[in-house]
Amino acid sequence: MGCVTSDYDGHRLVWGVPEIEFRSTMTVELVRASAHDADVLFAARVSTLGEQTLAHAPEANEPGGVEAEHKRDRGLINYLMQGRHGSPFEHNSMTFYVRAPIFVFREFMRHRIASYNEESGRYRELGPVFYVPASDRHLVQVGKPGAYDFLPGSAEQTALVQQQTRAAAIHAYESYQRMLEAGIAREVARIVLPLNIYSSMYVTMNARALMNFLSLRTKREGTQFPSFPQREIEMCAEQMEEHFRTLMPLTYDAFNANGRVAP
Amino acid sequence: MGCVTSDYDGHRLVWGVPEIEFRSTMTVELVRASAHDADVLFAARVSTLGEQTLAHAPEANEPGGVEAEHKRDRGLINYLMQGRHGSPFEHNSMTFYVRAPIFVFREFMRHRIASYNEESGRYRELGPVFYVPASDRHLVQVGKPGAYDFLPGSAEQTALVQQQTRAAAIHAYESYQRMLEAGIAREVARIVLPLNIYSSMYVTMNARALMNFLSLRTKREGTQFPSFPQREIEMCAEQMEEHFRTLMPLTYDAFNANGRVAP
Amino acid sequence: MGCVTSDYDGHRLVWGVPEIEFRSTMTVELVRASAHDADVLFAARVSTLGEQTLAHAPEANEPGGVEAEHKRDRGLINYLMQGRHGSPFEHNSMTFYVRAPIFVFREFMRHRIASYNEESGRYRELGPVFYVPASDRHLVQVGKPGAYDFLPGSAEQTALVQQQTRAAAIHAYESYQRMLEAGIAREVARIVLPLNIYSSMYVTMNARALMNFLSLRTKREGTQFPSFPQREIEMCAEQMEEHFRTLMPLTYDAFNANGRVAP
Amino acid sequence: MGCVTSDYDGHRLVWGVPEIEFRSTMTVELVRASAHDADVLFAARVSTLGEQTLAHAPEANEPGGVEAEHKRDRGLINYLMQGRHGSPFEHNSMTFYVRAPIFVFREFMRHRIASYNEESGRYRELGPVFYVPASDRHLVQVGKPGAYDFLPGSAEQTALVQQQTRAAAIHAYESYQRMLEAGIAREVARIVLPLNIYSSMYVTMNARALMNFLSLRTKREGTQFPSFPQREIEMCAEQMEEHFRTLMPLTYDAFNANGRVAP
Repeated sequence: MGCVTSDYDGHRLVWGVPEIEFRSTMTVELVRASAHDADVLFAARVSTLGEQTLAHAPEANEPGGVEAEHKRDRGLINYLMQGRHGSPFEHNSMTFYVRAPIFVFREFMRHRIASYNEESGRYRELGPVFYVPASDRHLVQVGKPGAYDFLPGSAEQTALVQQQTRAAAIHAYESYQRMLEAGIAREVARIVLPLNIYSSMYVTMNARALMNFLSLRTKREGTQFPSFPQREIEMCAEQMEEHFRTLMPLTYDAFNANGRVAP
Repeated sequence: MGCVTSDYDGHRLVWGVPEIEFRSTMTVELVRASAHDADVLFAARVSTLGEQTLAHAPEANEPGGVEAEHKRDRGLINYLMQGRHGSPFEHNSMTFYVRAPIFVFREFMRHRIASYNEESGRYRELGPVFYVPASDRHLVQVGKPGAYDFLPGSAEQTALVQQQTRAAAIHAYESYQRMLEAGIAREVARIVLPLNIYSSMYVTMNARALMNFLSLRTKREGTQFPSFPQREIEMCAEQMEEHFRTLMPLTYDAFNANGRVAP
Repeated sequence: MGCVTSDYDGHRLVWGVPEIEFRSTMTVELVRASAHDADVLFAARVSTLGEQTLAHAPEANEPGGVEAEHKRDRGLINYLMQGRHGSPFEHNSMTFYVRAPIFVFREFMRHRIASYNEESGRYRELGPVFYVPASDRHLVQVGKPGAYDFLPGSAEQTALVQQQTRAAAIHAYESYQRMLEAGIAREVARIVLPLNIYSSMYVTMNARALMNFLSLRTKREGTQFPSFPQREIEMCAEQMEEHFRTLMPLTYDAFNANGRVAP
Repeated sequence: MGCVTSDYDGHRLVWGVPEIEFRSTMTVELVRASAHDADVLFAARVSTLGEQTLAHAPEANEPGGVEAEHKRDRGLINYLMQGRHGSPFEHNSMTFYVRAPIFVFREFMRHRIASYNEESGRYRELGPVFYVPASDRHLVQVGKPGAYDFLPGSAEQTALVQQQTRAAAIHAYESYQRMLEAGIAREVARIVLPLNIYSSMYVTMNARALMNFLSLRTKREGTQFPSFPQREIEMCAEQMEEHFRTLMPLTYDAFNANGRVAP
């Protein structure tokens, strides 16, 4: 079995054997979104206006015009975030396609206010793509449980991790192939595969659930409640955060301005 | 206080007193939607294909072309519905603006897999709009608890309901106004208002949750599990169903073809 | 129809007509509970011990004995609360029987991480028990939306509220009775009943959901995120809080010590 | 590193190296339960009785006495199950301690109406216990996706699976140990571990959620909607089912009598 490091997604055949691919990156694509700051505003305003508030537009003769309107919008979203009025942040939807190793998906799916569909090791043969920590991944933990700090590994440590994760993946994947070739069912053969094999899924969340995810899966200075996520899920979270920031800028600003606590 | 029957939404002032309005209809508007049959398909196909399946388009040289593709899509959605594979029906979102009496909203909000924001009797003065059963609303129940049938009322019964619901609404709203005028807080004064006063809300659901709602809040012949909803919430459900049918026709057909059981 | 103020639950018949009862109190009974601080501890410790942690008992030769054990328990629960590690607070269950007016239940049921079963106005004739604010209920609101303060009403205001809520209840209930006597279905006749009629329900929650409920439905000085609940739901929340305090004292202390934010 | 097959839970040290253990069984212990048929009954009866129904006991002069009461109870639970009135089945709680391989936990945690706390590979060193299919585990799948049938493997196939899963586990665990010994953080080193390593968790569910779990994770003849679970999660489900049957016999009977569809 051959072995190559690349960002290439397909699996070339070398003498009929799939080549193993190693990666150090996570893929997050936004594939569907119906998510705007306006969705927060109309949902919040129904409580005080009691009418269809979606079409609510600044009128020519409204005091202050568009600029004042924008300031009011920002103020309302900030008020909701500050007071933890969460439900107006639920009337929207974002769907991501994520490729990441299984140990990341294991943490991901602990978030129950979300919808998931993942590639199945029962229905298809899993491709030989494995995660290897990049050379700048901190490898040494110090501090106490629940609040670890991570420091860079030595050159020897880095080399050891690279070598072991690759060797383990190759060994496991050969075992998997051997069983499949002998006619063993996929759902049985796959049990030898390691936690760093890549899988893929669609996940759909609303902004409230996404903010909860971000509050727990990113580490930032100065947040109200500090979090200590594993770096690999944080790599996914950072990409999701970037999409969120673009789609709902006022909501995103208010989230940051209020200590990154989900409302 | 004046009193008028109309479909007019505003509340005209007659000598400074709001006119009471009576209605027999429910309002359901679709205000946001990101919901397509394709959303079900891409979510389902990731399990067997293990790649970004959203862009998956029929190629020119695919066996059968567009028509065969369409048949495969329909078959897959039907398979999912039949086997109660529910999660692929969650990657979509529909937001409705609903105006209905409070006794309808009470039933609505028992559905927990949904997002709600409603007009608040604490933050605003509620408008004098009340539900009165239309003359064709069946008024007499026969049968046993849990499986009632409803029959038309006599002319006298119909007249009595019309007269009582109007008189009770007028009496209660006058009481409400009297307390507000005396400086009583809205949240206290509103406790005298009856269950047939209209309120308004935004509700967001995905197709899986909506199918569960429809299975319980519509009454149809030949369903797997018969339901006996109150007619007034069924009036809302029917309008939501019509939007759903238009947005996701293959999903809707499969829902009906499989006994209207939510997957 | 007679009219009497009492705490009596039954409805005496006076010449065949039920007597109306007025109350100013909420009833909350704890009817089932499997909820102990130990449930939090075993759930949390499985993450670091990886074995059946429920039977984990202080051994004779453990450093410090029972007292040190107790201190460690308290420290762990506090650590979980502070870091918003919420899931260990979910492996427990409390069921309450609540009697309160419908306007309270409307707010209650916005809490979706809970289980509800309520008396049905479709299946039974609702009893003539109505809420009337007690004479010390503050009636006048000052301040701005979302952060109102409430001040006592004048003698006239208090008398007006008493008189109006009673009169409205009597009028509505007579209307309800008249329709029932004429053979109108219960589900139709009940729409004239006011929001201050009492209903009853069972509600089941775990400690995490209950802390979220308490954080939003009680008003306390010095909490991280101030809440402004309507007084009547707070009257229920206070009774639930008392049961929670008794069942899970370490968890309750940690909740208070950390700003009453649900983990 | 030594290697031994046993049911022994601890890990003996052989020259400072933990011995690897292989198992073919799943462990499910019921550690907490507040779950009785009576919980379903009181929750259901509040809708028609509107009073504290928990204490409701057959009176001496009630028609039929205890026996008739029992028949009515059974009839009510059956009626609820048949009509998919689900909420009365939620006022109860069962907590299980489960030891199973990670590929089983991955499927388990797709069930979102449940509470989980699992052993953490970030906070502790994972023990060398691995799943090996028993010799009677069917290894060959026939049929089409979504409805596979499984047939026994040949002697060669069975031997191959035994040999490969053991060898892969030993190889991976040695790799894990090598990294730990070199000072690599646990959360990094663990990524080479295979999906058949055992983990442990507490899971809490109510009867409604448990019935949904059983309907999807057991395969039975004659159910309304056939399911095709992987055998290993079914081994857990069968043990949970046995506890459920003992705790709530009337509910369990009604579940089976109505096609094993969760209400």
